[in-house]
Amino acid sequence: MSGEHALGALVQALQRLPGVGQRSAQRMAYHMLQHDRGGAQQLASALQTAVQHVRHCSQCHTFTEGDICPICADPARDATRLAVVETPADQAALERSGAFNGRYFVLMGRISPLDGRGVHDIGAAELMKRASDGVVREVILATNFTAEGEATAHLLGEALRSLGLSVTRLARGVPAGSELEYVDLGTIAHALAARR
Amino acid sequence: MSGEHALGALVQALQRLPGVGQRSAQRMAYHMLQHDRGGAQQLASALQTAVQHVRHCSQCHTFTEGDICPICADPARDATRLAVVETPADQAALERSGAFNGRYFVLMGRISPLDGRGVHDIGAAELMKRASDGVVREVILATNFTAEGEATAHLLGEALRSLGLSVTRLARGVPAGSELEYVDLGTIAHALAARR
Repeated sequence: MSGEHALGALVQALQRLPGVGQRSAQRMAYHMLQHDRGGAQQLASALQTAVQHVRHCSQCHTFTEGDICPICADPARDATRLAVVETPADQAALERSGAFNGRYFVLMGRISPLDGRGVHDIGAAELMKRASDGVVREVILATNFTAEGEATAHLLGEALRSLGLSVTRLARGVPAGSELEYVDLGTIAHALAARR
Repeated sequence: MSGEHALGALVQALQRLPGVGQRSAQRMAYHMLQHDRGGAQQLASALQTAVQHVRHCSQCHTFTEGDICPICADPARDATRLAVVETPADQAALERSGAFNGRYFVLMGRISPLDGRGVHDIGAAELMKRASDGVVREVILATNFTAEGEATAHLLGEALRSLGLSVTRLARGVPAGSELEYVDLGTIAHALAARR
């Protein structure tokens, strides 16, 4: 296969996708070239369009094609509440719940010392500026309940409180529809402590 | 996210890759746009180049950029032996072994009734034509030892034998370096039956 430059380059390039190693890249390349050349062309142009047009919302940092994302541009949203999430996918999950009508700040990441990602890589300074616009009164830390998400919430919470803002965190507890028998012990302990 | 056309189109297009569902497509799109726009551009152009330039070798059906792949074009290879493999990756594995100096026919697939892929979809007619060129004397069936690979070998073997060709199959047995304790029973039974 050494003389096959275009195929080798494609296998190499596919490995830039997260979670794709050499073998899956090869399988992907073979599949697209053998069975779905239309899909390959569609993916090529979708990548180019996205790289050209997708940028960050100047207010909340999520991906958007204009200067401001539709949620930040919507005057009906409650500007006094700001939910801080890690990714656009987490934001979408909150939106689907229909339980939040405020604004967002999307960190586009989390603190991760192992990967060398600190508080500057998640736009902490921009969040401080955004949260101290004089309108925001409550910041809801909706980072994930993982070690990294908790550390992120802790650090951001301290900084935001020092600005005099009211800072809350999503409640922990037993998920809806779950049986206690199968819920992990840490969650049960939290649910007990926060009983009402 | 409904107004975000370019991002949505990218997530859609990534799902054309085999093994990529909605969630991984989203994760890939976010990662490329946030951390690796250069990689996204590289992937876009690698896809386009490959779709334009990669075609099938007129002799063995593997992917190539010219009319004939380097192996088929090499006069030093033994033209009397033809190994039939499922994919270019299997061909590469045989090449790495250094134990085969003949020519290849790459099926670019296998028989798979569940996916509606029969003997015509793997170029059986082209293989018959290739194998009856008057030079090939032995056809080595090197399809995988899976149910589908075995069925493919069985059907092709019958057809090739009816052309008067000598047809062999890769030997089954205990892999080099393995301990009997951990080898599956079917393999041990085959190794016993084929003992020498």
